[in-house]
Amino acid sequence: MSGWVVIAGLGPGAEALVTPEVRDALAEATDVVGYIPYVARVAERPGLTLHPSDNRVEIDRSRHALEMAAEGKRVVVVSSGDPGVFAMAAAVFEAVEAGPPAWRDLDIRVLPGITAMLAAAARAGAPLGHDFCAINLSDNLKPWALIEKRLRLAVEADFAMAFYNPRSKSRPEGFEKTLDILKDACGDNRPMIFARAVSTADEVIRVVPLQETTPEMADMRTMVLVGSSSTRVIERAGAPIVYTPRSVPE
Amino acid sequence: MSGWVVIAGLGPGAEALVTPEVRDALAEATDVVGYIPYVARVAERPGLTLHPSDNRVEIDRSRHALEMAAEGKRVVVVSSGDPGVFAMAAAVFEAVEAGPPAWRDLDIRVLPGITAMLAAAARAGAPLGHDFCAINLSDNLKPWALIEKRLRLAVEADFAMAFYNPRSKSRPEGFEKTLDILKDACGDNRPMIFARAVSTADEVIRVVPLQETTPEMADMRTMVLVGSSSTRVIERAGAPIVYTPRSVPE
Repeated sequence: MSGWVVIAGLGPGAEALVTPEVRDALAEATDVVGYIPYVARVAERPGLTLHPSDNRVEIDRSRHALEMAAEGKRVVVVSSGDPGVFAMAAAVFEAVEAGPPAWRDLDIRVLPGITAMLAAAARAGAPLGHDFCAINLSDNLKPWALIEKRLRLAVEADFAMAFYNPRSKSRPEGFEKTLDILKDACGDNRPMIFARAVSTADEVIRVVPLQETTPEMADMRTMVLVGSSSTRVIERAGAPIVYTPRSVPE
Repeated sequence: MSGWVVIAGLGPGAEALVTPEVRDALAEATDVVGYIPYVARVAERPGLTLHPSDNRVEIDRSRHALEMAAEGKRVVVVSSGDPGVFAMAAAVFEAVEAGPPAWRDLDIRVLPGITAMLAAAARAGAPLGHDFCAINLSDNLKPWALIEKRLRLAVEADFAMAFYNPRSKSRPEGFEKTLDILKDACGDNRPMIFARAVSTADEVIRVVPLQETTPEMADMRTMVLVGSSSTRVIERAGAPIVYTPRSVPE
């Protein structure tokens, strides 16, 4: 039996958002590796070894997965959301490129998942219904100046925006700066969406006009969406609907 | 029994990429509306009426769905991919906003799906593993000048890019112009990915250096991805792996 690595997206949290393809891969696996809270979402069973590891050891975890596959094991690397969006797929391929040549011939597949921005958008309406961009606001792996440049160009392009990793305890100032940049560059009061723990029991969705936003509205479990200049809010008895029309007039 | 509207994403094509949540909604529906090829993916059964309709009648279709829900029916509006990404969710909310006030009180939910860009990215490796944008290249609903502006700003921001609806028989020139803009603005030979009919029996994935791309590499069933300046290609015996590293050095 030859080994493989599957890099699988578990979606934002709810079991009902895990694809059958991912469910099947987990059923065939001998080993599962990933960040502790994501591995905790995989049911234990005989013949399956779980290898939870801490945050910020993505390359070590990737090497471990590739080594096990080279030994003939069937390894699933689990990510939250989609593995290709600010998650484990890029880390595994970094490890492949830097590793022994034989790793390139391994059977490695990426199985997509429901990424947080699309789960959050669905809860709010259709804020990403027109052209949009996705930016990781963490400056752990890139200079802050690049984030600021991208924010200003995204506003100029009039993209709706989705922010991953908006704010953590160790870097609370980045999101404050982000809001200052947006308030200045947008110059309007377009809707922002703070979607915390989407599809879990802790889910909270807030729609807040840009000029009224404050940094503490986000934490590491929050997905933040920003409308474009044409994004609309439909008020009603329940939660408002936020959507970006499909068309932009001449 | 009170009616509802669910706007559901069927994913890119394979049944194994349809979420259980969407499967359950279809099982409870009395009526399904959508573009002909997407409705054709829903199995017929007693008690379910299928309402396939042609392309470019999204608002009529949305009104029909809302009218049926107001009459107490359980209506699923099906989209390919994710309904919030260049698909039916924005159209339904446009109809809600322009329609009778009572429509705002209907039970309307959006169920996310695997969108084409993430399915395509997964097949190629992790080309969207860093900041990226999604642009609909059709100028049916927006001026071409806006598309060109967004393309140039996206290159300046060094986003990876995903293009929906790159090319159709009725407007073959837009994608040719897009490639000319990219070749000029990028000034390098970064990888592009042409992913046709992802997850179906017709799937074809091609990785082509930007300067060697030609317009006929895309059609309306093709998802086109463009790397950022740091996107890498891992050559190997099989199909190459394309990925964008997670980090950008200072």
